[in-house]
Amino acid sequence: MRFGEGMSMLGFEAHHDGSPLYLPDGPVPLGGTTRVRIRTWAGSAVGNAGGTSDGGRPAAVERVWLRTLEDGEPRFAEARHLGVEDGWDWWEAELRAVNPLARYRFLLREADGRSSWLNAAGPHPQDVPDAQDFRLSTAPAGPDWAAGAVMYQVFPDRFARSAAADTRPAPDWAVPADWDADVEYRGPETPLQFFGGDLDGVRERLDHLAGLGVEILYLTPFFPSASNHRYDAESFRRVDPLLGGDEALIRLVQACHERGIRVIGDLTTNHTGDTHEWFRTALADPGAAERSYYYFGADGGYESWWGVPSLPKLDWASDGLRRDFVEGPKSVVAHWLNEPFRLDGWRVDVGNMTGRLGAADWNHDVGALVRHTALEACPGALLVAESTNDAAPDFQGDTYHGSMSYASFTRPLWAWLTDGTAVNFFGSPLPCPPRIPASQFVAEYRAFAAAYPWTARLHSLVAIDTHDTARAATAMIPGGQAVAAVLSFTLPGMPTVFAGDEFGLEGMNGEHSRTPMPWDEPHRVVQDLRGLYSALSALRGEPVLRTGSLRWLHAGGDTLAFVRELDGTAALVVAARDEADVVLPPGLLPAGLAAGTDAALAVGRIALTADGDGGIRLRAAGPAAAVWLLS
Amino acid sequence: MRFGEGMSMLGFEAHHDGSPLYLPDGPVPLGGTTRVRIRTWAGSAVGNAGGTSDGGRPAAVERVWLRTLEDGEPRFAEARHLGVEDGWDWWEAELRAVNPLARYRFLLREADGRSSWLNAAGPHPQDVPDAQDFRLSTAPAGPDWAAGAVMYQVFPDRFARSAAADTRPAPDWAVPADWDADVEYRGPETPLQFFGGDLDGVRERLDHLAGLGVEILYLTPFFPSASNHRYDAESFRRVDPLLGGDEALIRLVQACHERGIRVIGDLTTNHTGDTHEWFRTALADPGAAERSYYYFGADGGYESWWGVPSLPKLDWASDGLRRDFVEGPKSVVAHWLNEPFRLDGWRVDVGNMTGRLGAADWNHDVGALVRHTALEACPGALLVAESTNDAAPDFQGDTYHGSMSYASFTRPLWAWLTDGTAVNFFGSPLPCPPRIPASQFVAEYRAFAAAYPWTARLHSLVAIDTHDTARAATAMIPGGQAVAAVLSFTLPGMPTVFAGDEFGLEGMNGEHSRTPMPWDEPHRVVQDLRGLYSALSALRGEPVLRTGSLRWLHAGGDTLAFVRELDGTAALVVAARDEADVVLPPGLLPAGLAAGTDAALAVGRIALTADGDGGIRLRAAGPAAAVWLLS
Repeated sequence: MRFGEGMSMLGFEAHHDGSPLYLPDGPVPLGGTTRVRIRTWAGSAVGNAGGTSDGGRPAAVERVWLRTLEDGEPRFAEARHLGVEDGWDWWEAELRAVNPLARYRFLLREADGRSSWLNAAGPHPQDVPDAQDFRLSTAPAGPDWAAGAVMYQVFPDRFARSAAADTRPAPDWAVPADWDADVEYRGPETPLQFFGGDLDGVRERLDHLAGLGVEILYLTPFFPSASNHRYDAESFRRVDPLLGGDEALIRLVQACHERGIRVIGDLTTNHTGDTHEWFRTALADPGAAERSYYYFGADGGYESWWGVPSLPKLDWASDGLRRDFVEGPKSVVAHWLNEPFRLDGWRVDVGNMTGRLGAADWNHDVGALVRHTALEACPGALLVAESTNDAAPDFQGDTYHGSMSYASFTRPLWAWLTDGTAVNFFGSPLPCPPRIPASQFVAEYRAFAAAYPWTARLHSLVAIDTHDTARAATAMIPGGQAVAAVLSFTLPGMPTVFAGDEFGLEGMNGEHSRTPMPWDEPHRVVQDLRGLYSALSALRGEPVLRTGSLRWLHAGGDTLAFVRELDGTAALVVAARDEADVVLPPGLLPAGLAAGTDAALAVGRIALTADGDGGIRLRAAGPAAAVWLLS
Repeated sequence: MRFGEGMSMLGFEAHHDGSPLYLPDGPVPLGGTTRVRIRTWAGSAVGNAGGTSDGGRPAAVERVWLRTLEDGEPRFAEARHLGVEDGWDWWEAELRAVNPLARYRFLLREADGRSSWLNAAGPHPQDVPDAQDFRLSTAPAGPDWAAGAVMYQVFPDRFARSAAADTRPAPDWAVPADWDADVEYRGPETPLQFFGGDLDGVRERLDHLAGLGVEILYLTPFFPSASNHRYDAESFRRVDPLLGGDEALIRLVQACHERGIRVIGDLTTNHTGDTHEWFRTALADPGAAERSYYYFGADGGYESWWGVPSLPKLDWASDGLRRDFVEGPKSVVAHWLNEPFRLDGWRVDVGNMTGRLGAADWNHDVGALVRHTALEACPGALLVAESTNDAAPDFQGDTYHGSMSYASFTRPLWAWLTDGTAVNFFGSPLPCPPRIPASQFVAEYRAFAAAYPWTARLHSLVAIDTHDTARAATAMIPGGQAVAAVLSFTLPGMPTVFAGDEFGLEGMNGEHSRTPMPWDEPHRVVQDLRGLYSALSALRGEPVLRTGSLRWLHAGGDTLAFVRELDGTAALVVAARDEADVVLPPGLLPAGLAAGTDAALAVGRIALTADGDGGIRLRAAGPAAAVWLLS
């Protein structure tokens, strides 16, 4: 396709985000002020032959105002013109963080008298509600070590067995399975199939993680339970003896720390197992304090997650629950961050449902308490929570640092790269992901990312699949996973690899994807992508890919391109799902990127060549993706 | 313009809103269930010659799912096909109100395999965030008498003087003015210019209100103060003696009630005047309980509205303030709803800023308390609050019944009908409203209305101007006000007339618009629109215009059309700002509306004639607007 189709204005749109390029003063305290910058295309400044709209370039902007909301009321402040650089006008205004969450947008007036708004979802010719205004949280962001760091997700039962695992008898509930047995992914045995991976098994494979460039190890629950997934905890105070007990966790965390790898655990704040010590006490003694931890009805029945009786729902109105679970240095939340365990943070399960039931909504309270307690115990802790759907409204900087969500990235990614295979599409009743063009991927990505403060995006997981989804390799066109991986490692946030992705493992749904790692069964390696993930992690060493701004340059049907920018450096990323032949007009690409420049990383065949009068021609034999660095 | 330009798909879009057509079971309690219906264009059923997309019609839908959010988690339920009627497929699903605010949307799958979403802003080919999902509040809606009722806004100093007014000396602060003097609208005398209208003056003019068909009289503040606008109350416990005191209010309300007119007052919950009895006590005695009602700093300074020292801001953290103002049968809120005053409700000033300051946000608390106290005192009370900008997120059914906002209707209306006159455009720094096409008016209207529960829309003010804005006659093209009035009386909500609109009065800004009524100065009547407003009010007797659904049929540049539907009746409304010649294709208009049908009301010249193969041709010499009724 030629430039001019699809979202061709994209690369010349006015731009701002919360990155240092646009907010040069760093964190802002409540009541503090910061400079806020915005760039607008200068129009005729760079090679805009004829200046017609056919070129896809908007008219030059002559005045810019910052609009803030202060104590609920809109205010306007005019921005001053800073100068012109590489075809862009730069403007600056001063923003005062009157409220803990500053919300703002820009009003642009073009030379022809037309006006438009710029918010976090992009430019709008008409007025739009405030939901997608830019957001700047005055609450401290997540830790620097985590911003954009490479995360690796391990489901302990399926990762690796240490020798000690052979000495442990399988528990009564379990259906033991050989390591290379097929995974039961539908039916009553699904949660019971027991492969017996353990934490020492993980520790023994840290070379593998180091080889992949992993910076954060995210362990799904290690608590004792009556299932292989362990989201039905029997206790939050002990590591499952089947995983090696507390000592194995201490050994694992220490070994990770020695290699510079951080470790986060997985807490279920929405429910426990019905074998949990609290729940047993509550069942046995209706007068017990623990009775208040759950929602018991007058008839002795109780609320549970999705009506599953083995997962009784926690009632966060209970002061006792709050004390035991999330308040103070002896709470569950603090316990595992303290010595001798020294976890580096938490991923919180079912964050979107926690504390919500009928008329009750303690969701924000729980998040704020988890944050407070965890940061008291470990000031550098990372706190993320699961919120599978439209997550941003619950991640405004004052609770978790970021989300584990599928709405902004994973869902539209699958829809862009689907080959029509029937996989569970995040609960949708559609038989497979609806196939969409790249322009729609970008529209969805922007819409669902818009309501996060920028810092929350840097501390949110960017996953192509997880232990709860089908595998990317199954959901996508052949070669699609590699393109998806490039995008997950180059967009803002924490690229997250589910163990087994590096071997191209397949899976029809979340349960199916929990395949034991094929350490000694080379025939179970579908595609060895270790080299790609290693290279992507190495690339991730570039600060621009960790905290740089994100600007979309092009999105058509089969092709998309964006640039990350920071302190005079830039990374250009192009992805194509099919054959592509696109001419990018003069001025679109960052200055310094000439045709013929070598890509820092490429999968598939993709090249930039000169095109006529200063443009650049992008040709790809997709699926393909590449990254160019400009320093 | 011809059909096919602009938002030509509009009339064939899948449709749902919260009206009885789609929610046939009426109010839903928490935990209750209701049937939810949706219509989709059946495609080939009605005159879709060739079935091409050129006709502007979407492909037929073959499956529909209702998606709800339950305790924060998305759920899907398939809708069943009810049948086909007039070219539309009707579908029905069951919705359970798991939470106090049910949020839902629809997923549609077309025969060609494509899928789309329908939310309250319209259809979307791609996934979108939840902010514009349909909302159904389980909290009781506003009173039936107010749903869609005609409201008339009176600014007491400028409406009418009784004979008694002549006997009252002007207060010290005032700059007295003759009734036909020019209004001072810029400068220090603006709040001091005193025309001396009073409540008996209003009472003596109730024939005028009755003649206009007014159902609700909305009085801006009647409290004693040191300004003509009285938003700087000296007390919330007395009617200003300059207005005739408590007895005059009692007389006025009684006289209104005898005519079937309800009366609402205007409460300022954000601030008081600095002459308020609470503030004087607080100033005089730092140990007084009233000190906690305000935000005093250690230096004796205090917070005030927009930094204006005469308007000290109330601190809703204060239990004393809550008791005095909003809690219990003796509070200010209840006092005026009780005997002997018997007000029928409140409009609350600066609702969007109330309770918000820096890190504090008591806004929702105050709204919920006002509601609780008012409905205890007067179960049929109407409660609306000012929120000038994007108001919907604060009007979710559990606080005020509706809003007084400009974002959804007034702002885009002015922008559609602007003639470029420089008027204050709701605080925007633009020199005049940005001129937009009708398609953009509809897009803005839908976007800003989307996040209200439907019932809140029926209890929200729909004003073409107010005492806080320029006059429509000044902001709009010649003839534009009449078109605007037709829209305000035919869209969902409470059409609101600012006293003087019926005489075509002019004004450059809010202060300028507070012109004394030209009762005895015919030369000051700019245009006598009393007949139009009377006719519009009479039309408003049709239930379909009060509670019927709203479906947009067409929006181009200069022309828009929509239909309201209820129980087999319908009202078609067309508005044009300029010459219009539009062909509406077969199937677009409701069955029963034939070419040549007489309009129930028309301003300007506008006609529907037959066009070729079953379409209808709409021609207008705008500005023009008309309403057709189908019963």
